[in-house]
Order: sequence, then structure tokens, then C-alpha cells
Amino acid sequence: MTLTPEQQAEIAEARAHSRPTLRATADGMEKHLYVAHPILDHGLVRVIDYMGDDAAITQAARVSYGRGTKAVQNDEGLIRYLMRHWHSTPFVMCEVKFHVKLPVFVARQWIRHRTANVNEYSARYSVVQDRFYHPVAQDIRQQSAANRQGGDQPMDSLTAREFCNWLDEIEKTYEKYEYFIEKGVARELARIALPASVYTEWYWKIDLHNLLHFLSLRMDPHAQQEIRDYASAMFELIRPIVPVAAEAFVDYNLQSMHLTRLEIEALRTGTPLATENKRENAEWDQKKARLGMSNPE
Amino acid sequence: MTLTPEQQAEIAEARAHSRPTLRATADGMEKHLYVAHPILDHGLVRVIDYMGDDAAITQAARVSYGRGTKAVQNDEGLIRYLMRHWHSTPFVMCEVKFHVKLPVFVARQWIRHRTANVNEYSARYSVVQDRFYHPVAQDIRQQSAANRQGGDQPMDSLTAREFCNWLDEIEKTYEKYEYFIEKGVARELARIALPASVYTEWYWKIDLHNLLHFLSLRMDPHAQQEIRDYASAMFELIRPIVPVAAEAFVDYNLQSMHLTRLEIEALRTGTPLATENKRENAEWDQKKARLGMSNPE
Amino acid sequence: MTLTPEQQAEIAEARAHSRPTLRATADGMEKHLYVAHPILDHGLVRVIDYMGDDAAITQAARVSYGRGTKAVQNDEGLIRYLMRHWHSTPFVMCEVKFHVKLPVFVARQWIRHRTANVNEYSARYSVVQDRFYHPVAQDIRQQSAANRQGGDQPMDSLTAREFCNWLDEIEKTYEKYEYFIEKGVARELARIALPASVYTEWYWKIDLHNLLHFLSLRMDPHAQQEIRDYASAMFELIRPIVPVAAEAFVDYNLQSMHLTRLEIEALRTGTPLATENKRENAEWDQKKARLGMSNPE
Amino acid sequence: MTLTPEQQAEIAEARAHSRPTLRATADGMEKHLYVAHPILDHGLVRVIDYMGDDAAITQAARVSYGRGTKAVQNDEGLIRYLMRHWHSTPFVMCEVKFHVKLPVFVARQWIRHRTANVNEYSARYSVVQDRFYHPVAQDIRQQSAANRQGGDQPMDSLTAREFCNWLDEIEKTYEKYEYFIEKGVARELARIALPASVYTEWYWKIDLHNLLHFLSLRMDPHAQQEIRDYASAMFELIRPIVPVAAEAFVDYNLQSMHLTRLEIEALRTGTPLATENKRENAEWDQKKARLGMSNPE
Repeated sequence: MTLTPEQQAEIAEARAHSRPTLRATADGMEKHLYVAHPILDHGLVRVIDYMGDDAAITQAARVSYGRGTKAVQNDEGLIRYLMRHWHSTPFVMCEVKFHVKLPVFVARQWIRHRTANVNEYSARYSVVQDRFYHPVAQDIRQQSAANRQGGDQPMDSLTAREFCNWLDEIEKTYEKYEYFIEKGVARELARIALPASVYTEWYWKIDLHNLLHFLSLRMDPHAQQEIRDYASAMFELIRPIVPVAAEAFVDYNLQSMHLTRLEIEALRTGTPLATENKRENAEWDQKKARLGMSNPE
Repeated sequence: MTLTPEQQAEIAEARAHSRPTLRATADGMEKHLYVAHPILDHGLVRVIDYMGDDAAITQAARVSYGRGTKAVQNDEGLIRYLMRHWHSTPFVMCEVKFHVKLPVFVARQWIRHRTANVNEYSARYSVVQDRFYHPVAQDIRQQSAANRQGGDQPMDSLTAREFCNWLDEIEKTYEKYEYFIEKGVARELARIALPASVYTEWYWKIDLHNLLHFLSLRMDPHAQQEIRDYASAMFELIRPIVPVAAEAFVDYNLQSMHLTRLEIEALRTGTPLATENKRENAEWDQKKARLGMSNPE
Repeated sequence: MTLTPEQQAEIAEARAHSRPTLRATADGMEKHLYVAHPILDHGLVRVIDYMGDDAAITQAARVSYGRGTKAVQNDEGLIRYLMRHWHSTPFVMCEVKFHVKLPVFVARQWIRHRTANVNEYSARYSVVQDRFYHPVAQDIRQQSAANRQGGDQPMDSLTAREFCNWLDEIEKTYEKYEYFIEKGVARELARIALPASVYTEWYWKIDLHNLLHFLSLRMDPHAQQEIRDYASAMFELIRPIVPVAAEAFVDYNLQSMHLTRLEIEALRTGTPLATENKRENAEWDQKKARLGMSNPE
Repeated sequence: MTLTPEQQAEIAEARAHSRPTLRATADGMEKHLYVAHPILDHGLVRVIDYMGDDAAITQAARVSYGRGTKAVQNDEGLIRYLMRHWHSTPFVMCEVKFHVKLPVFVARQWIRHRTANVNEYSARYSVVQDRFYHPVAQDIRQQSAANRQGGDQPMDSLTAREFCNWLDEIEKTYEKYEYFIEKGVARELARIALPASVYTEWYWKIDLHNLLHFLSLRMDPHAQQEIRDYASAMFELIRPIVPVAAEAFVDYNLQSMHLTRLEIEALRTGTPLATENKRENAEWDQKKARLGMSNPE
């Protein structure tokens, strides 16, 4: 992503004037508020507003669970407890607003998370910009047979280059799009020819609980690589707002494991999983490996 | 839309076996349950399940407002009263599930209504089908200067034909898409080259209150013509489930008018609107015309 | 409401330290951030955090509707346009967090608005405080025959005083509650004897669009007086955050009028309403009176 | 709960007439549709409508994940896979509508689940009925020191009886309530003296995914016993609608276990938990016990 001088000036302008406030303020966040973090080839994500911090979480928890919580748990212990048990209500008391530029195919996955507020650039009102996601040849992935969702393995370089050439062709669509816009064709019609790789942008505002839920799904290895790039960057961006909650999220969510009734039983009794379902057994093998219980040959 | 013989057989099969139920049943709906209604060139919408009827609305209203309502108002009067005052809670007690095939650019507008449940065909897991929305030349609309959103006026026929030819070109993208899928490129990547005119499909389930809200926005003349086609068809589809509510919706919502404080004041005193805002005055002129109060000359 | 010295100290402490921020800041709001506004006899409402201002609304609208909007409309004109057409998405980009003390029967009405985040004081974890809503005798209202919801007319003073005496009796329940808590009865059980007049408290966080929707319903004359007191105070509290949007809300929502298809037809043709429904005719009479079109004798 | 003859007649009437439908129908559910299941002393829960069955879940999953899923997984395997990975979207395609009578203090916990539709009996419009939750002496629980939420241990019988006598006193409030209603005091005011043990009723409609989430929280041992009684009964009620999903819910949710990063590490390396937090260590001890890894001693 290269910011235009105009955009750089806008950001500099927004960062030039600080004002006094009585609200909770996260110094670590203030340091990069408004600053654009490049994602993919032309995308970006930046925080443009936020509400609350770690203290807002404990404040909300203490109104729910009573002042007595103060005596028994310090703030960090309380936040970690809340995260461990995925108590949602105190975390919803923080809010973050992002500005994101992203390809349409990523936007289509993203929008499925319905618990956020969105204002998207409208291709009915406005002329779409000439920006397309164009991965480089080594990022062209194979369809995976096992994991039907995506692919981790790179394509052979010949096909990858062929694919990239095709994307070059596709992007030329823009010239014709522009031509018909100038001819006076309705924008809402002209845009239907543009590919899913074209960039759009939006403001996206969400509370911390739902943001963490979004991140846990979209930082997951099963998510498409392109949206994972956004999710990982966003997690780093919000860490300075809620450092304690963010670390607890890693310990109790991102790097946690879920054991089913059958797996608990297998562990407890030292017997195989009580099902012949192949996929379920494969999942159990993966978990055992992570628990250091891989079967001997 | 031409249904494949396979799809026709599926529908015939679904309609072949009726089962007894103690639930509320809408005979008018049963007559065309599962039946596909063609929209645009390859799209369709059909109702595949429903819950509740007009009586479910009054039943819910009566638990809220007490049995006494029975004495003073008959069912029709009660439903019309609830609709007139846009009381949401009794209407949410009905639910409709649709199956829809629609172009991606329509899906992108549609999904903004967050109060529904969606299961969409996944272009990560599955191969996208070779179906594109391709309006005919006389449906290619001009950008409107006044209404920045869309366009009602047709383009000159020369440009329109040129535009249609362009869409023909765009659709050839599919051959290359198919080629790369066969080569083993990840589906999630290959699909990024497909245009917004490509068809997708989904199940979409929503309660009656939110459905009516969706319809009031998407049957509006300011909505894009293509989504209006879906919305209008859906309204006709659900009428037999809730005939009384549907008629009340026309009288009290679709064909209603909103007067602002300034407009009320203008009407009351017979004076011009107390603002020089051009757009607001233009809106007032339109309303006056509808009220039969157009200014002479 | 009398704040305890401890609570006053907490507020003073929160207001003592301002910090620099790069975020949008509403000076008018900062002046009374955290300050408690008394409602009813022991209730309060105060803003404890906020995100965004009028400029955040136009910023969001402009990403949706394109930069071109800047040319044709100034900020005020744009906000008023958005409000006039009840465009929700730009207003959701502002957020407000309240701290509220309120009787349980008010909380029960309030919580029905599901589009907000809530952290309520828990009567399972904590001991309920000895605070009850106790209206004075002249505020004891009659059941209205016409308006089945509430009552505007005061009761005769004898019954009113009798009613107040009853409330005095009811409040003595607290002594027994306290007694059983001390005896060790589970809080979750002891509280079931407490009346709906007992006070609870919560943090309540909501975006501006949904807040305005809440206010339009709860500032309405049909809402119960006690919740109207909260809603009216909250509207005054948030005015300094979004002064332009707040004024537009008055003009285009609070003091607006909705005309049905039948009413439009009656106005246009100068004929009576095409229905014999008494309630609908009574509503039409009220609207006509407001429009200065009362029938002559 | 004793149903009045009138209510019994209503249920018999609703069950008397079956109609043919083309919709998915669950025979096991039809057998007890509308039938009231008693909960607590005067409460009830019953299913009054439903949409979808196990097949609706797989149908929705297959539109998302492609027809290919049919080849590799049978319906049961697919549902179990979806549940194991808590994929929400296919489960939202089923919907259940309940009629519930419940004490107000239970309703207050229940309503916190915001993803459902509710129509509650209004104490502003209607006269509240003379029904109060009154646990018997052996069900009066102690406050637990360890678990700050509730209590499992019974109170000593003397205090328990004293407590029950107090509840008897409290219920006499109803006579005065009725007296003031007859005197003409507004219902919305008279009800503020009624205790949280008074019964209310509502229709509650929710999709299967959110219902299962509600049940997993409210069937949990940490939930208050009274709401657990409702949740457990509801789970049994809906089993015949979605028998496969219900069983998968038991295996993969109700009886599952969550391991944190620290616990995984402790298991893998055979070392103590890398934290001195007492509560976290106590939680780990409980999990180890369940996994058959209790410490010696």
C-alpha cells in the first residue's frame, strides 16, 4: 500500500492536535491512532477511535459481581478469570472503530460477522477506485484435498505465473469500467463487471467481546490467508488498548483446546476414541500430539 | 431462469408428500411452498419453510396486552392497529425461510440487513456455477444526476449494446476460472477474478417484522432495480401466510408518508417551509403534490 | 438522590485528571462527564464514556456516499438529510456509555431494547441496597380507561395517601431480607421477596442510532412516566456530544407525524377516513387538530 | 402447576385438529406440541411452534459447504462435525417457539439472552395474576462461600421454615395490590409493590444455535437452580425435533472440557500449572480429577 500524499496529510493532520479529555485513555494506542498499517498489496487497517481500556472491563465486572470482587482479586486476576470463562458482558464495554481497505472477497467473509457496525464505500454513489488485489506468484496456493477450505501448498511456478497473468488481464476491466462511467452508464450497473479482487473500504466498529470472537475465528489456520492477515494485524493494533485482556485471550482462547466427552473418556481410561469416525479420530490424533501423547509407532 | 430437470425433480419430490401437523398452517402458502419464482435472468426465490400466520400475531399481542384486547378488537383490527403503530414484538413471532439465487452485487446489498440468518454457497469449498446476470440492452440505465444512487432513464441504444457486449466478454472469464480450478488452484483464490454479476445462492431466514422492514427499504423506488425485483416477488410470496398483516403493511407503511415538524408547521399555518435547504423543499413539494396541494403555476 | 460522600469523592476523582487524546472530543460533554443527574427519588443517570461526535457521523456518511457529498452539502445539511431519512449506518458510528440507577420495574421495560450492552448489579453475588422508589401522593396516577397503558390523572388524595402508606409497609421487607442474608440464606433466594420498586444499577452502552430509537419510544407520551424521566434526562445529557444530530432528531423524529395511506387519501380528497374503525378515526382527529384542520362543530 | 380447565380445554382444542403440510415435520415433537410441562410450583414450559429438523441443518450446511459433503459424510456425521466445531450457521436454520410461565426473578436472568424474540405479559395493560414462586423448606439454600453465586447446601430447617413463613407474608401483598387496582390506581404503579417471586408469562422464540447456547449456560451447575429447571426441561422438549443434533450437543458441548494454554503445557510436560493463581489452580485440579489424573494423597 502506498498512501497518497493527500492521505498522509490527512493522517498527519488528525494526529497533530491533541485535546484534553476526562475519558479513559490508552497511551499505547494514542501513539499509533489513525496510523495506517499496510495489509496485502493495497489494503490497510487503522484504528480511528476507541472507548475503554482494561480498567473499563474490571469496572463493568465489579458492578455485576459486586464490590467484594475487589478484595479477592486484583484487576489482572479478575480480567483473566473473566476471559477464562468467556464472560462476555464486561468485555462488551470496550469499543473499537477501524478504517479498513480490503478486497471485496475478503469483505464478503468479514461481513458475515453481524455484531458490528459498518459503513462501506458505495459503488452505487461513487466511482470505484482502480485498486485490485494481485498476489505474487509464490502466493498462489493449491486446493487442498484434505482441508476442503483452502490451500497451504504453493502451486507449481508455471501455473502460478499463468494465474498472475490472468489477474493482470482481469484488472484491465477497469479501463472499460471507467469508459462506461464516463459515457454515463449508472454506476450501480457498471460495477457489476468488476471482479471480487477489487478493493473497497469501510468503517467497522465493534465491541471488544465480539472483536475477540471475530479474531479467534479469523486468526485460525482454517481461515483464508488474506483475511488472516487483517485479523492478525488488528490484534496487534488493539493490544495497547487492553494489554491484560489481550494476553489472557492468547492463553485462554487462541492457544486453548477443546476436549469432547469422547476425548475426555479416552484420556481418562487410556482407551481409543469411542467412534470410528475418521475425521474425529484424526482430530483426536492432532490434539494428542499437542498434548505430548502421540502414539508410539 | 431455467431449472434443471434435477432441480424440478427435487421440487416435485418435496411437494409430493404432505404430512399431518398440529402447527398453524397457511393453506395459501402450502400451494406454492418450495416452488421457484424466477427473478432476473438466472435468479430465483422460493419459500422453503415458514412459522406462524396472522393468528400467531394476535396470539402474541394478546399475551402482551392482555385478554381484554379480545373484547374490544377483532383480530383484523388488532393486527392493523399493531402495524399502524409499528409494534414490532408480535410480528417477530412469525418466521419465513427463503432459498434465493442472486447475483453477488445484489447479495452484497442484501447482507447489510443483519437481523436475518444466512447460509450462503461457499466459493471456498465449492466450484462457482457458470451463471452471470446479464441485463438486456434496454435495461441498461443512465446515471441520474439528481438521484445520485441509480438511474431510471435508459442509456442510448448504442452504448447499451456496447455495454452488453462488454458483459459478454466478462463472462468468458468463467472458462479461465474453470481452467485454473482444474489445474488445482485453490478455489478461494480462483474466484477472486469472477465479477460481481456472478450468481450465488443462499438460505435466508428472518422474522416477519424484520422482513417487512427489509421490504420497505428494498421495495422503495430508491433501491436498485435488481434488488427491488427480489423484494417485490418476496412480498407477493408471503402474502398468503399473513394476508391481513400484508394488507396493513401496504396501508400503513408502503404507502404512508412522514411529515417533519417543519412540514406540519407549514401545513398548519399555510406558510412556506421554514428552511432554505433546497433538497428539503423539493421533498416537501413532492409530498404536497401527493396530498393534492400543489402550488398553482 | 443523595450521593454518598464516597460516591461524590469518586466522581471528583474521575473528573480531576484530564489526559491528552487524539480522539474526537466533545467539549460540552467533557464539562459534565461522570456527573450524576438525579432521577426520581433515588435514581441517577450519568455519561461515563462516549465515542464520536457530529463530525464522526458525516465522516461515516462520506465514506458511504462518496467524497462528492462534500461539495453539495455542508456537514449540518448532511446530518439533517440523514436524520430526515432515518439512515441508520452513519449514526451507529457514535457510542455512549451510561451509568444508571433505576427501579427494577423500569429496568424491566428498558432491557427490552436488545441492541445495547448491559452490565447489571447482580443480586445473586451481591447484597441488594436499601433503596426503593416511593412516589409522593400527588404522583399516584389513575388507570386510564381510554389509554389502557397508564394514567395521567392523579388519584383522589385519600387513596393516594393510602397507597403511599402501603409502599412504606412494603419497604420494611428490607429488614427481613437483611435478616435472612445474615442468617446465611442464599442471596439469589432472599431477593425474590423484594418488590419491583427496589433500585438496581447498571452500565448501559449503546450506539447513537439505537439510542435515538430508544429515546423516541421512551420519551413518547405513551411510555410510563418513570422511564420517560430517564429518557428525557438522557437526551439532554447527550445533546452536547452531537448538537446538530440532536436538533435534527427533534425536527424529524420527535415532533414528526406519520400519515397512513387512508389519511393521505382523506387529505387529498377532503373526504372522511375510509374506515369505520373508531380508534383509527380518533387518531386521525388528533392529527387533524395538530395540522390545524379540526372539524367545525 | 395446575392448569385451569379453561387452559386444558385450549390445549385439547389446539391438539384436536391436524392439518396437512408440506413442511418438515418432527413426529416426536407433534406428539407433545402445545402440551404444558410443569416447572417449579406454578410455572410451565411448552413448545407451541417449531421450524426445521435435523435434515434442515444438513440442507443448510450443504448449500454452504457444497454438494460434495454428501459423498463424504452421511447426515449424522455432518451434524456431529458441525456441532464439534460449533459452526453456528446451519443450526440457526431451525427455530422453536415456547410458551413459558416463570417467576419474574427467573425472567430477569433469562431476558439477558438478547438473541431471542419475546412477547411478555404486560403488567401495565393487564392485572397480574395471583401466583408466586414459593419453594418448600428443604429447597431453601445457603449462600456458598466458595461459589459466590448461589448455594447448594440446604439451610437449617428452622431458618428455612422461617423463610417460608416470610414468603407467605409477602404473598399477602396481592390482596392489597388487588384492592388498589379496584380503587382505580394505575396498574403500572400498583405492580411496583409485587415481589420478584410473582409469576409472569411470555412467548419466547429462538433459533436452535442460540437456544443451545442459552441451554449450555443455563443448564450449567453455576446457574441458579430455578432457571436450570426450565433449561433442562426445554432441552428434553426439543430433543425429538433434532435428535441427532441434541446428542451431538451433549457429547461436544455439555460434557466437553476446555483446556487453557497453561493446562495444555502442564499436561504435556507433567509439571504444575505455571501460575500461582489459586482459583486457576483449583479449576485445574477439578479438570484433572475428571481426566483421572488426580494427585496422589
